[in-house]
Amino acid sequence: MSDYAFRYITFLSDYGLTDEFVGVCHGVIHAIAPEATIIDITHGIEPQNVREGAMVLAQSAAYMPRAVHLGIVDPRVGSGRLPVIIATGSGSLLVGPDNGLLTLAAANLGGAAAARKIDNPEMMLPEPSRTFQGRDIFAPAAAHLARGAGLDSFGDEVSLESLVTLSLPEPRRHDDHYHAVILHIDRYGNLQLNVSPKELSNLGLPAGSLLEVRIEGHRAMVPYGDTFSTVPEGDLVVTEDSYRLLAVAVNQGSAAERFGAHHGSTVIIGPPGSGAGD
Amino acid sequence: MSDYAFRYITFLSDYGLTDEFVGVCHGVIHAIAPEATIIDITHGIEPQNVREGAMVLAQSAAYMPRAVHLGIVDPRVGSGRLPVIIATGSGSLLVGPDNGLLTLAAANLGGAAAARKIDNPEMMLPEPSRTFQGRDIFAPAAAHLARGAGLDSFGDEVSLESLVTLSLPEPRRHDDHYHAVILHIDRYGNLQLNVSPKELSNLGLPAGSLLEVRIEGHRAMVPYGDTFSTVPEGDLVVTEDSYRLLAVAVNQGSAAERFGAHHGSTVIIGPPGSGAGD
Amino acid sequence: MSDYAFRYITFLSDYGLTDEFVGVCHGVIHAIAPEATIIDITHGIEPQNVREGAMVLAQSAAYMPRAVHLGIVDPRVGSGRLPVIIATGSGSLLVGPDNGLLTLAAANLGGAAAARKIDNPEMMLPEPSRTFQGRDIFAPAAAHLARGAGLDSFGDEVSLESLVTLSLPEPRRHDDHYHAVILHIDRYGNLQLNVSPKELSNLGLPAGSLLEVRIEGHRAMVPYGDTFSTVPEGDLVVTEDSYRLLAVAVNQGSAAERFGAHHGSTVIIGPPGSGAGD
Repeated sequence: MSDYAFRYITFLSDYGLTDEFVGVCHGVIHAIAPEATIIDITHGIEPQNVREGAMVLAQSAAYMPRAVHLGIVDPRVGSGRLPVIIATGSGSLLVGPDNGLLTLAAANLGGAAAARKIDNPEMMLPEPSRTFQGRDIFAPAAAHLARGAGLDSFGDEVSLESLVTLSLPEPRRHDDHYHAVILHIDRYGNLQLNVSPKELSNLGLPAGSLLEVRIEGHRAMVPYGDTFSTVPEGDLVVTEDSYRLLAVAVNQGSAAERFGAHHGSTVIIGPPGSGAGD
Repeated sequence: MSDYAFRYITFLSDYGLTDEFVGVCHGVIHAIAPEATIIDITHGIEPQNVREGAMVLAQSAAYMPRAVHLGIVDPRVGSGRLPVIIATGSGSLLVGPDNGLLTLAAANLGGAAAARKIDNPEMMLPEPSRTFQGRDIFAPAAAHLARGAGLDSFGDEVSLESLVTLSLPEPRRHDDHYHAVILHIDRYGNLQLNVSPKELSNLGLPAGSLLEVRIEGHRAMVPYGDTFSTVPEGDLVVTEDSYRLLAVAVNQGSAAERFGAHHGSTVIIGPPGSGAGD
Repeated sequence: MSDYAFRYITFLSDYGLTDEFVGVCHGVIHAIAPEATIIDITHGIEPQNVREGAMVLAQSAAYMPRAVHLGIVDPRVGSGRLPVIIATGSGSLLVGPDNGLLTLAAANLGGAAAARKIDNPEMMLPEPSRTFQGRDIFAPAAAHLARGAGLDSFGDEVSLESLVTLSLPEPRRHDDHYHAVILHIDRYGNLQLNVSPKELSNLGLPAGSLLEVRIEGHRAMVPYGDTFSTVPEGDLVVTEDSYRLLAVAVNQGSAAERFGAHHGSTVIIGPPGSGAGD
């Protein structure tokens, strides 16, 4: 396998695993690049949720080997948005639609160094469809890149300034507490906030503190612990999650169910008694 | 890997991914054929829906590299139906139950050229069960084929005429419109019809036309566009899908939800005002 | 690939496939052990259900090639429970939390031969989190083992007697019938019981007998057949399942729906008229 430019192609999408979309893209990749190994990051991104896809790709990319990272969450497939390749400072490449999906990951991979549009028909399947460009354009491009095709064989350069970027919601500090947002809810019902331990520490709240947390009309006093089992089974806990952000969790239970919380819910977090007038 | 007859085994089933069925079949394959690479087309076929499995396998096979295609949707497992291998004109092989699952794909792979039953116990796991023949009969057969076992080592020849075939529902033309059927609904809620652009063109309705569409008691005037984003977000559109069939879709939404449509629903499609007396 | 101690790493967890947890662990494994092949047994174990994970891992392991078996169902992640490696008589290794998840599989793999704790930071990702030790501790350990790292490089020996074990529910015999328990319900709604054909045979009930089955307030007379299609479509049948246990099934239907049964439901099974006084 040593003669490939990239041994690995990682793959993230909102295709789900019920349909054959992911499997067909795997087939297309192997037909072009038989020696490539595909790592499926996830295909469970909420359909057409570019922001969620961008965050998950950015958080995951750091744990991947050097690779061509194929990302497809593409609500505007077949319309004017560009198919692009972004070269990063880390040496890894990103392939997907220019809708913001890739730029957060590029920033975590040493920054975008160069970008190209994909418009050379020789790098696509014949007669590409307007509705399944993962199969017809993006998967073939990733496979050709793995085999060593140069960026200039895909299309014209795209200026880095013109790439679509997404802004993540910033937590808003109100005196002694934060108005945060739930960025992500995982399978266990843990609620990832857009607040880091450092920000809580800036409020004078280190791990071990008691916090007041308000979500969707509920208010609770919650210990800020080292891990889920800092608290008894079934109790609430705030802890640093695996991406170094704060998460609200229930030990061996679901915080999402407890609070009726969802992606995007506001969370007010601070010391007991804070934010009473909000 | 060059000494294998087939480098790839593709795998489609209705096993789902919640149970361990797919993983156990992967283990069985690797234990027999360590050098094989498995491509999972999908395991999300509706349980025991042979027709859906047959269509997805047939549509996907064209995008796969040369392979042993393992297909398992098998409501009559362990009863009289034959386990078979079908050799195709393309050089790829199909392995699975003789219940119609494989024959549509064979037609798309250059046609069935020869078929064999699988009844040699040496090509199965010891003491095969009556209920999990994917593990005990089909996966081992695919693995032995990948390693180069000849068809004649599996069992007697089966006449091609005796293979079970499925008929897909044909669209029925009524004067100026079609009575169609929903063949498939994907994750995004797009409704795939058994009507092609060519058939609509025969009614004098090229892309760009306005269509009247009736589904499950709903009636709508729908533009026939090039892709989803021909229409504003949230609007209905009819477009050619990635398998060259017509699909009813909502741009960045779900047509299945909009119409309360399901697999097999009748769809009346034609020019505005057509089919009023149906 | 011949220079690896283990070519295969199998992987079972309760991570699900909607989040990126599984994909990130794959990335971590490939970054450490590029030549390893990963076989995903399943990631659909009910969240935090250690017993279900242990049973599925034990039943699946026999069908896997020689491997490092990575198992992660870990409700007490980051607390006092040990991360361990268990060497088995079969030559395969098991890696995961010491909470009972691994010991049933060890028994099916020739028995536990030695065990080690994982506490050498050089065998982990830098600064391991308290909440995603699959990524930070278990996946790296499996990858290092695949490359040939010795058990003594991970940490101190753990006595086999100190390993946490699970007891599976035993069926209770009452005169002429059994009080059994549903161990597992699969995608098709088949109900796996903790009773084997041998035990039924001890009651004088061979295959071909008529059985009385009571589940969740329902009572039914059910043929004990060779496979699902012993009975007409839609009828109940008791049959030997693929793990040599008895299952209550509906031919081409769901026994779980028919009875409103769930994991852990009691099932009374015996000859017609048995257990009337229970």
